[in-house]
Amino acid sequence: MQDLEQQLNFILELDRLKAVYRQVTVKSDNNRRENSAEHSWHIALMAQTLNGYAAEPVNVARVTIMLLIHDIVEIDAGDTFAFAQQADLDAQEAKELAAAERIFGLLPAKQYQEMLNLWLEFEAAETNDAKFAKAMDRVLPLLQNMKNNGGSWAKHKVSKSEVIARNNLLDGLAPKLWTYVSEQIDLAVKNGWLRDA
Amino acid sequence: MQDLEQQLNFILELDRLKAVYRQVTVKSDNNRRENSAEHSWHIALMAQTLNGYAAEPVNVARVTIMLLIHDIVEIDAGDTFAFAQQADLDAQEAKELAAAERIFGLLPAKQYQEMLNLWLEFEAAETNDAKFAKAMDRVLPLLQNMKNNGGSWAKHKVSKSEVIARNNLLDGLAPKLWTYVSEQIDLAVKNGWLRDA
Repeated sequence: MQDLEQQLNFILELDRLKAVYRQVTVKSDNNRRENSAEHSWHIALMAQTLNGYAAEPVNVARVTIMLLIHDIVEIDAGDTFAFAQQADLDAQEAKELAAAERIFGLLPAKQYQEMLNLWLEFEAAETNDAKFAKAMDRVLPLLQNMKNNGGSWAKHKVSKSEVIARNNLLDGLAPKLWTYVSEQIDLAVKNGWLRDA
Repeated sequence: MQDLEQQLNFILELDRLKAVYRQVTVKSDNNRRENSAEHSWHIALMAQTLNGYAAEPVNVARVTIMLLIHDIVEIDAGDTFAFAQQADLDAQEAKELAAAERIFGLLPAKQYQEMLNLWLEFEAAETNDAKFAKAMDRVLPLLQNMKNNGGSWAKHKVSKSEVIARNNLLDGLAPKLWTYVSEQIDLAVKNGWLRDA
């Protein structure tokens, strides 16, 4: 197969991420559920807007691509709620790796390797770029839930400690954002949107 | 207002682009109409995949940001069908400039200026980066319509010459892509999806 044909197959396959729905709802669109494609767009622009808060400078171009591709695996593996049981999250991990190999594998070899490596780097969350990218992915639903009377937290009876565990990678990484997020978590408890546990 | 507060207001305002619907439909999601947020995500990844075809190298990080922000103005101005009457397109232009000033204006001054400049550069389509970005925005609906029995073309009785006029900025900019697109346009006519005029 020609490179171009492979690349166009990949691009058209991406369309399917628009049919993967998350727990978070879109307040401005009658609270329909948000899909993973528009979510990825949103956090990429969030990284563009907030990268100045990173304690160690991040490469925002790399962070952006990580965020644009990070959910593509959900085309095969589906979305798992952030606060699902650990066993479900572990099973999801294996499905997502297989999905990454299949979907990025639609591309010519060199692009396949580049995208796969970037996706693995995001998943591992060890580099500064990957940590910052992951923080964006985690903080946006918090902002959305805060604007939406607790949104998916209230619905799934999520606790304060679960949200802290999910967002405290900001601590040290972007101290000013962590301070803000911590205050929002306290406010969510006060408003009855998060369980105080 | 603090910078962070302004930035978070901007980020939350972006949510509204998920409620702006285009003429193109999402085949993989029961042919519901596509929104401008997920469309922006899709063309950003298309640029990432296809930038190697640009005759003059493009700065893919700049192209990506242009594509992520190019439709934000539709939050205020709405989407105009690509093949609308010229008078409608002219009226749209003034609305979009006002929208850019209001929405990017939610950001602190320096970020406002950067985003506005990038948006204006995209709109003017004079630099190589902006031309390539614009080409991505125009070619993806063609690929989507080709996979969808003519999609929005057939519905709106669009002609071959209109599609050529919209896509021929690829000629010279990315010759191999232009060859491919030209062949697809001929095929669309043959299939009865575009009027032969």
